Amino acid sequence: MKVYVPFSPENPKTRLSSLLTDEERVEFVYACLGDVLEALEKTDAEPVVLSTEPIDGLGGHETVVRDEPLTPAVNAVLRKAEPPVGVVVADLPLVTSDALRRLFAPEEGFVVAPGRGGGTNAFITRISGFRVDYHGTSFLDHIEKARELGADVRVIDSFRLSTDADEPEDIVEVLLHGEGHAAEFARERFELIEDEKERVTVERV
Amino acid sequence: MKVYVPFSPENPKTRLSSLLTDEERVEFVYACLGDVLEALEKTDAEPVVLSTEPIDGLGGHETVVRDEPLTPAVNAVLRKAEPPVGVVVADLPLVTSDALRRLFAPEEGFVVAPGRGGGTNAFITRISGFRVDYHGTSFLDHIEKARELGADVRVIDSFRLSTDADEPEDIVEVLLHGEGHAAEFARERFELIEDEKERVTVERV
Repeated sequence: MKVYVPFSPENPKTRLSSLLTDEERVEFVYACLGDVLEALEKTDAEPVVLSTEPIDGLGGHETVVRDEPLTPAVNAVLRKAEPPVGVVVADLPLVTSDALRRLFAPEEGFVVAPGRGGGTNAFITRISGFRVDYHGTSFLDHIEKARELGADVRVIDSFRLSTDADEPEDIVEVLLHGEGHAAEFARERFELIEDEKERVTVERV
Repeated sequence: MKVYVPFSPENPKTRLSSLLTDEERVEFVYACLGDVLEALEKTDAEPVVLSTEPIDGLGGHETVVRDEPLTPAVNAVLRKAEPPVGVVVADLPLVTSDALRRLFAPEEGFVVAPGRGGGTNAFITRISGFRVDYHGTSFLDHIEKARELGADVRVIDSFRLSTDADEPEDIVEVLLHGEGHAAEFARERFELIEDEKERVTVERV
């Protein structure tokens, strides 16, 4: 089964600008992409990078370049793909092959893992005609669309697949639970501290 | 297996004060407690409320009252308990019996589900002598202690068990994914909107 990994390294992760320089933000999204691809490689899936620009240095993964926003780029590949087909976002710094296997195992027509805040971090569709519309609460919209197409829906309960790399709080989770390149990137730069309200946050080492 | 549910309804959830009145915060933690107890009742566990004050109106669950902070109260019951024994925090608004069964199923000596930010939202210990120390990154500390006691450790990857009810962003998750009393409470008062940065947040209905 092909699993597309949309990737856009142009001025990424602006909400991390308080923590990371422009160069570091690019380095970080490449680290996350590497983790997602390596985790996928350990499953039965065939990862395909769907990138807005040519990339290299990632071990020769199949890459499709489409210089388009996320939604039309993903829909272009879904239109051509033979189900089953999956889409896993590139910015999952806690991803593991075990978590992905839990996504791939169920037999329902549409299997999906939500992100924090209502996003759609990973899905598999076994039905034809499914199209994405990434925005705010896309998770709810995608489930509704899949049901309209007649699919049974299964939601995967995964902390690892729900954790994006968008906000400074996400870096806390990377330091606590990460196991790959993104964690290595974060541990070289940050450490966990408790703030005055006893919440865990990060500061530069 | 007894599973203790620590509960303190005195001025709870102060970080939700921007969204909820004092009375609502108390009502909300009771709603969350009800969800946790009902989910536990659908498993093989025997829930015991470990409350800082007498409670009622929750269907006659066994209750232990200890007017102490969280850590000494939990350690007092762990000291007397015969393993296996579990502790599940009361403020898990997305809890389901399926998520709890995933916590109870593995056979390792210490099975734990982290909360966002490094907390310890739920654990089972099958070894004697395990004691808690709830604070910042208690998740890491608890794993280390369990290993020192010779336990194999298993971490449960659950978005539902990782989601607390501490911050306004958590109310977003309750509206998106909740199925019980906490979700009913939230849906009566809030709806999802997208802010100027296209993040999903909540406002009063």
